[in-house]
Parts: sequence; structure tokens; C-alpha cells
Amino acid sequence: MAYVRWSHYFLPTWKEEPAEADLASHRLMLRAGLIRPLATGIYTYLPCGWRALRRVEAIVREEMDAIGGAELHMPVVHPAELWARTGRLSDFGPSLVRFQDRAGREMVLGPTHEEVVTDLARREIQSWRQLPLMLYQIQTKFRDEPRSRGGLIRAREFTMKDGYSFHEDAPDLDRYYPEVYRAYERIFRRCGLSPVPVEADPGLMGGSGSHEFMLAHDQGEDTFVRCAGCGYAANREGAVAVKEPDPDEALLPREEVATPSCTTIEAVAAFLGIPTRKTAKAVFYRAGKALVFVVIRGDLEVNEAKLARVLGTAELSPATEEDIVAAGAVPGYASPIGISGDEVVVVVDDSIPPARNLVAGANKEGFHLRNVNFPRDFQTQLVADVALARDGDPCPRCGGTLHIQHGIELGHIFKLGTKYSQSLGATFLDRDGQARPLVMGCYGIGIGRLLAAVIESHHDEEGIVWPTAVAPFHVLVAVLNPKDGNQVALATSVAAHLAEAGWDVLLDDRERSPGEKFHDAKLVGIPVLAVIGPRSLRTGEVDLERRHNGVRSPAPASPDSIQRAVQDLLRTE
Amino acid sequence: MAYVRWSHYFLPTWKEEPAEADLASHRLMLRAGLIRPLATGIYTYLPCGWRALRRVEAIVREEMDAIGGAELHMPVVHPAELWARTGRLSDFGPSLVRFQDRAGREMVLGPTHEEVVTDLARREIQSWRQLPLMLYQIQTKFRDEPRSRGGLIRAREFTMKDGYSFHEDAPDLDRYYPEVYRAYERIFRRCGLSPVPVEADPGLMGGSGSHEFMLAHDQGEDTFVRCAGCGYAANREGAVAVKEPDPDEALLPREEVATPSCTTIEAVAAFLGIPTRKTAKAVFYRAGKALVFVVIRGDLEVNEAKLARVLGTAELSPATEEDIVAAGAVPGYASPIGISGDEVVVVVDDSIPPARNLVAGANKEGFHLRNVNFPRDFQTQLVADVALARDGDPCPRCGGTLHIQHGIELGHIFKLGTKYSQSLGATFLDRDGQARPLVMGCYGIGIGRLLAAVIESHHDEEGIVWPTAVAPFHVLVAVLNPKDGNQVALATSVAAHLAEAGWDVLLDDRERSPGEKFHDAKLVGIPVLAVIGPRSLRTGEVDLERRHNGVRSPAPASPDSIQRAVQDLLRTE
Repeated sequence: MAYVRWSHYFLPTWKEEPAEADLASHRLMLRAGLIRPLATGIYTYLPCGWRALRRVEAIVREEMDAIGGAELHMPVVHPAELWARTGRLSDFGPSLVRFQDRAGREMVLGPTHEEVVTDLARREIQSWRQLPLMLYQIQTKFRDEPRSRGGLIRAREFTMKDGYSFHEDAPDLDRYYPEVYRAYERIFRRCGLSPVPVEADPGLMGGSGSHEFMLAHDQGEDTFVRCAGCGYAANREGAVAVKEPDPDEALLPREEVATPSCTTIEAVAAFLGIPTRKTAKAVFYRAGKALVFVVIRGDLEVNEAKLARVLGTAELSPATEEDIVAAGAVPGYASPIGISGDEVVVVVDDSIPPARNLVAGANKEGFHLRNVNFPRDFQTQLVADVALARDGDPCPRCGGTLHIQHGIELGHIFKLGTKYSQSLGATFLDRDGQARPLVMGCYGIGIGRLLAAVIESHHDEEGIVWPTAVAPFHVLVAVLNPKDGNQVALATSVAAHLAEAGWDVLLDDRERSPGEKFHDAKLVGIPVLAVIGPRSLRTGEVDLERRHNGVRSPAPASPDSIQRAVQDLLRTE
Repeated sequence: MAYVRWSHYFLPTWKEEPAEADLASHRLMLRAGLIRPLATGIYTYLPCGWRALRRVEAIVREEMDAIGGAELHMPVVHPAELWARTGRLSDFGPSLVRFQDRAGREMVLGPTHEEVVTDLARREIQSWRQLPLMLYQIQTKFRDEPRSRGGLIRAREFTMKDGYSFHEDAPDLDRYYPEVYRAYERIFRRCGLSPVPVEADPGLMGGSGSHEFMLAHDQGEDTFVRCAGCGYAANREGAVAVKEPDPDEALLPREEVATPSCTTIEAVAAFLGIPTRKTAKAVFYRAGKALVFVVIRGDLEVNEAKLARVLGTAELSPATEEDIVAAGAVPGYASPIGISGDEVVVVVDDSIPPARNLVAGANKEGFHLRNVNFPRDFQTQLVADVALARDGDPCPRCGGTLHIQHGIELGHIFKLGTKYSQSLGATFLDRDGQARPLVMGCYGIGIGRLLAAVIESHHDEEGIVWPTAVAPFHVLVAVLNPKDGNQVALATSVAAHLAEAGWDVLLDDRERSPGEKFHDAKLVGIPVLAVIGPRSLRTGEVDLERRHNGVRSPAPASPDSIQRAVQDLLRTE
């Protein structure tokens, strides 16, 4: 194994901070010569970045193989027809890139591969004897994201590990799912990360149907709730919101009250001198042709993901003032009382039934009603938790306190069930000779995002601090004066000895000042720096420096000594 | 290292020959469960195919690294604007897939990466100190080929190793180019292939400007010429066509002769009782607005690639009858004599000047002219070799005999010079501080095609015969009766011992008949088959069979013995 000479390598570093980058990983990947943008959300991996990415890939591959995964490779370009059959050709919206090929056939760029892998399973899996099966790939995907940001954290073109498991029945998927969960934990741990596994969608298919692995991060664009007491953690969209009931009160008679210019809950509450939790708020959405009228306690916000699930729709958008008026409601003063119509669906959050004597709109400009009570004054079939969990809410599991955190989603595992196998007709013959749809799970990790997350968690103000497992090189040998033949001779022999021992070695033989070399060494963050300068020639010693703690120690340049010294240093993490 | 159990792997084999596949590699890759089509020219690599592809990739990577290559990874999706700047947005035609992203920006799917890598070099290479530099990637490309065929031999989506070198000047490129040439030879040799390096384009930039590595193959869609005597080999489009002159004759006076209904050279020659080589043929093309009138000896064919080069154009298409008439020529009887016009370009093949007293068209329906001579009767500025070399032609180098062969192009190396660096403004400061355009080379290998070519060269009527270096597995351990616990125990211990020794092992533990297992073993072509059956339980011996020569030998099942026996067998190739 040979070492790499920086003078003949392609590792351009930047002294300046890039203006456009907000996240540390984005900034450092640009400055340390790991990536370069080609277009918005589209990046070239430079050689050092590609080396690091391949190390992450190798870890993912090992852990997927260890749970019986068989690696395959599916195409970037798919026939659109396959996506039409599952309905996702429209569901995906403009994120899905479409084009016509020269034969006029509509094609898409694959943003994920459920359709393709299920179609493959449909053709190739006939019998329960072929099950269970885990197929995975590490492959390039494209999603025309409206807001790509943060470098590799949310790119339009990205490398993803996507895995798909196939099972005879739900219990077999239930048995296998925790194996993937543990493999994911090992992958992240080996990369030096400790994301929080959160329940991503407990309402849809039971408490263990889907997990996201969230790296807590102030600038993360995902949010999740977490209980410090019992460890409960859930995606904020899926978190159960527990509403503490008010003390029981006698129901008082309803009465109208003038509330001039009070068109918001906050204004009404202030005007009447009551807390917002003593009001019932009206929130309107459109779902296809229907107007959705949500009634929720005034201090809570609607969780649109939960609402969409309750309504069984993917198309939910805020209603316009015209929509509200057309339904016979007065904007700003809308009332749940007396609202009706074929195309109006009333959804009552479960915060409303236990509440007493609320203030709600009177459906009359400038007026509200006091002492509104459910179900005395209005009714609906749809009572459900459609509220967003809040920081400080009680934990639904232990009653402790929930905290809201921002995070970066590193992985997502999901029990798909038969959603895709049914729509694509992927059946197999079970042990009784009956045709049944395959039961599936899917499991994703964004490889580039994972690499960026490693840097988010492993850097300091001077640069990257690579964990050894994913470092592009293990040792950086810097020769302070590359015009001094003796220094170069010693440096190349040290580099060769370390490479022989199996380490990946980068030799900084560039004609740069020692200051620049030390600066770049911090920036690129190779775990061990070996410095060869004039003192080395006098003493026969190399100065070693461990990047993560800055500890320096000299070591004799002889093969055995230097190899042993580096090995000892790399053991510390 | 663990072995893989076929019963839990995804390796579906076909008994039947696929109807649609003409090439052996296409047929065998389908039958042996290596690939599956998703759409025309778009394939999924199944796990076994992907393993083999990754072995090919690893060989390519090692050899590219050995010549100083730095691996990077460029995107699939490029901004069209970059392609517009080199003119290839239009040159590539409909093979280049274009789409608009959600911001309305025009994008393309990269069919190759000269534009992207040159733009990267423009931004990052400032000084001669950074040169020479070799960058390469192994990456997915898309070309909307009109006729994708033969499975992976010509796919629309394909994996390619593309490398780009950057130099201070042409001599440095000349020095480096043979290193790549030799690396390519090593790559192909290690994959068990011996392609012929052919001069691909000797006319454009000198005799050594570009080489294609052609695997001789009857069904290959490329053709090349080769001299058995001196080893001269050239792409047929680039091959020098040597025309042996006729014996000198006195020029005879021109005379008109009636040739009713003789609108082809063959008809005229037969009618007049002369060989076709005693005629001058007129062939018409359009090049942009110009009509191109090629005069060539009647027994020769026009080489359109050479003609395009002579004219300095990429847009050459056959002329229509209207084009010919509009230029004042009579189709079927067109004459080089008297032809003129601003937009008519006359090109005379160099077979014409040494010829004497030819028959040519009279530009008059039903008549030809005898004894036409150049330049006595017509003239032009453009005399050049624009003829296609023919089987049996004299070798331009040694005078021996050229043979035309069909082949599959496995690799192409090319001295680009400054074509891209100039159009994209990629300059560097040379040793004198002067800005100069980077001198570039580019080097491609289709990885999937290379894998298919391995199978074309290594198979028999029963299946694939993998060379060990690229085999997806080294050893196939077949347990004849997987319901016999003793056989399974022995087979798993043998598989484990072989895996421990570092071999990749596939254990055929499927509930299939011994006949099916032997059949599939031949089909999938793993180098060594180890059979465990009832006899193994009695004798403690495993039956080993080497796929490439069918030689069988028993070996004791003990760890040392079986490991040594397999090692010995794998040494023979």
C-alpha cells in the first residue's frame, strides 16, 4: 500500500470562510477540500471527501451484510409508469424529475426505490421458501428539493443506502425489524455518532412501526420531543400530545359577548381577561373539495401530519378566506355551533371534550360566545389528537416533562406492510399454497448526510476532527521544508513504513510554509500528524500530534517505533 | 468473513433461454441471475452481478491509483449551461437527456464529464505546481442511445470509469499517455481479456493521439482493421486506406456514351464491361448549408468519419435527391465536370488522381463519359483519403494484408489537448508566470460492458466460466440433500473453513434436486464447485470440480486439506 503525495493529489483548501455556508459541516467540507458545488444542491466529491464517503459506505455495507442483506444496484432512471401504479407519480409532486426519452416514453429520476424493488420482487419471488429476504443498495438518487441547504445535509443529488426486506407475514417483519434497528445503532456508533431513535409515526401502524434516528442539533431542520425521565422520544409530527384537563366545572349557560376587532384567540383572551386555554380555536384547511374545520383548545396548535392521518389524505392545504365564507362561516368569528354542509368536515381535537365553558366564535362579526361546551353545544364524529406537542408538555408514557429538540435525521426505518406489494401485485405462494402479498419493510440512510453529520459532531474551531473509523487518511506526514533533501528522505521513509503497516498516509510535500501546513493539518483533521523538520534530522525523532486532543509526543523514526507509536495514538479516541 | 447461503440470497436462475437476447453475455447474465431489465437499456444488477461488477471496479481502481490517479465523484445531473459553452449541448443531440428543474433551470443527465471536470480544474488549478494531475471516477452515466442492445454491451444507463489528466504542455501529456495505455493493458489482462489496441483517430492529432481497446468479436458492432504482418491496427473509421494505383496509361480523349437506366456504378460497369475500379463514383452529403460532392473510385466506399474530419464538421448527413437537383446535378448521372456553385464543396478521394481514363456521369439522363481524368477534366482544392479500408487492402505500414474484424470497444484513451480547457477558460500560470490553457487527456472504460465482455470471452454452452479475479464467488459448496442434517453440518463447516481462508463462498443449501444444482453450478460458473453428498459422509471427502476444465478431484474435508486443495485449484486458470 502506497502513501499519497499531497503535491500530486487534489486536495485544495480554502483559508477563507465561505459566505454561503451556515452549517459547520458545509463550511468545513468546502474549506477542507472535500466537496465542491456544481449547482444548487448538487456537489462533486473531491478525492478526500470521496475517501471519507467510501469509509462510511464500507461500515454501512458490513453492518447490512451482517444482518443478511444482499447488496444489489438499481437504476437512476425509472419508467414513470411504475410510479403511476402506486400513485406516487403525482404524490411526489415537483420533487420527482420527469422527462421523455427519445421513444417518447415518460421516465423519472428515482428519488427512492420502493417501486423498482417491489416490481423486481413481483417477478422473482414466487414462494415462501425465498423469504425472508433483505435487499439493499448504496446508490445515487435525485430529489428536486425546493430548499436544498447545508451542503450535504439536504442535497438534491445524494447517495443513499436504501434497504428493503420481504417477509411472509407481519410477525416475521416484527421479528426482523429490531435487527435492522440494532444494525443502525451499530452503524452510527461506529461513525462516532449517538443519534436518538425516535418513534416517527406511532399513530399510523402502532408504536413501533417506524423509527427515525435523530442527531440532536440546534440547526437541524427536524424537531422531535424527548422525555428526560423515561426516554420516550418521538418525531414532533408523531408525538402524542397529552392535554391536562381543567378542574371540573359546572356547565354554565351559553351567552353572547361583544368582542370588537378581536379576530385572534390572543386578542379575544386579552380582551376578556381569560387564558387562551379557556377558548376554542377554529382552524380551517382544504382537503380536496372538502373544507376541514378543526376545533382545538386556544393554547394549542394543529399538527398537520396528525390531521392528515386522521382524514386519510395527503393533500392538506390552508383554506382561503373565500373557502371559509363559502362554508357559511365568518372569518375571525367562526363558530363550531351550527356549522354544517355536505363538504364541511368538523374535526375536534381531544383537548376540547374535557374542557369546560370555553369562549368560541359566535359566527357574527364582532361577537363571541361564552360557555361553549362539547358535546352540549356542538357535535362531530371525529374527535382525535391533532395537536402539536409542546416543550414542557407532560410525557404520554411517564408523565414527566417533554422537551422539544432540533435534530438531523440520519436514518429512517419503516414497516411498510403490504402497501407497495398490493398496488404492484407482488404476491407469493405461502406455506398453504395461497397467493399473498409480500410484507415489506424499508430502511434508509443518507450516506452523504451521515458524513456531514460526522463533521457536525467532530470538529473544533480550527477544523475537522475525524474519528479514525471514517477518516480519509489515518496519518498526515508533514515535511516542513520540502527543498531539504534529508527531510524529504526521512519523511518518505516514515510515510512508507506507516503505509506498510496498513495505515492510509498522506504526505504533505507541498512547497508551503510550515505555518500553512500546520493550519491545513488542523483543517483537514487527519487523526495523527507526524511532523518532520530540522529537529527530526538532529534527533532522529518525529513529532506526533493527535488531532482530537492536541497531545504531542516524539517518536523515533525507525519503522517499528513509529508504527507502534501511531498505533497507540490511534487507539485513543 | 462469512459465507452466503443461497436459500437466503437473491440469485434467481432461468432454465430457459431468453428470447430477446442475441449476445451470449446478455443471455447468460439474465439466466445466471446477474441482471434484470427495468426498461430498454436500463438494468438492475442483482447481488451476484453487483459482486462481479465490484470486482472489476476494484481492479480498475487499483490500476488507476497505481498511475497516480485520485478518485473523485462527480454528479449525474449537470447544468446545461456548462454544456452550451463547449457546444456539446447541441452536438450530442437527443442522446443527451435534458430537463428543467423546479427553478426553471435547464439541466442534463451527464453522458460523460469533460465539461464538469474541466470547470472544476478551472476553479481549482492555478499553478503549474499542481500539475500533472490525474482525476478519475467510477460513476453512473446516461445516454439515450437510439439502439441500446446486447444487455450491458450498450446500455442507456451505465457505469463508467472516466479519467481526466491535466498537464502543463503536450510533451508532458505525451509522456503520461503511455502510462495510461499500459494501465489499461493490465486492467484487461487481469480481467482475462486481450483486446487489440487500435489507433482510433490517427488523422486528427497524429498517429498516437487516441487508442481504442477492441475485443475481437464476431457480433461486435465496431469494426477495425488489423495487419497480421506488422501488428498495425486501426479503428475502421480511422484506418488509412492505401489505394494501389493502376498501371500508367496514356490519357485518352473524353467521349460521351449512352448508358440507359444505368444509375449505379455496378450497372454502368456491367453495361460497359469494365471493372468498377475504372469508374469515378459521385456520392453526395449535406454539411450544414453546403452540398458535399465526393468523387471516389467506383470500387471504394466513402468513410464518413474521415470525410467529416476533412471538412471540419460534425454534421454530415446524406443528401436528398432535391439537394442534388438543386445543385444542378442529375441524380444517377452526376458528373464532377462542370459542377460549381457557392454552396457546393467537391472532395476528391486520393484514389482518383493516380487513376486513368475513368467512366463518370455525363450529368445528362442516360449518358456517361469515358476517359475522365483528374485534374485534366475537373479540379478541386480538397484531395484527401476519405475511403473506407477494405478487407484485403494493403497495410499502410508494411504493405502486408489488412483484415477487417468486428469488435467490442472496451476502452478508449484520448489526447484531448486544449479543446475543453480553451472553451471553458481553464488556464494555469506556467513556470514563467504566463496564463496557458491546461493540456488534457481523457480515458474511459465502460465497467458494465467490460463485465459483459469477460463473459463473452469466458463461457461455454453450459454457462459462465468466471476467471477467478472477477468471479462473484470463488467457491460454490453444494449440499446435495439439504434435508440430511449430517450433509448440512459437513457443508456448513467446509463453507466456514473456506471463508476463513479468505475465499468468497456461496453455499447452495436450496431444496432442489442434485441435477438442478449441478445445472445451476455450471450456469453461474463459480471457479470451484465443492460437492457434499452421501459419499462425503462415508469417506469424509468433498468432491471438487474446477469449472474451466471440468477436472474433478476429491479432497479431505478437514480445514487444512480443503483449504489447500481449493487454493491449488484456483491457481490453475
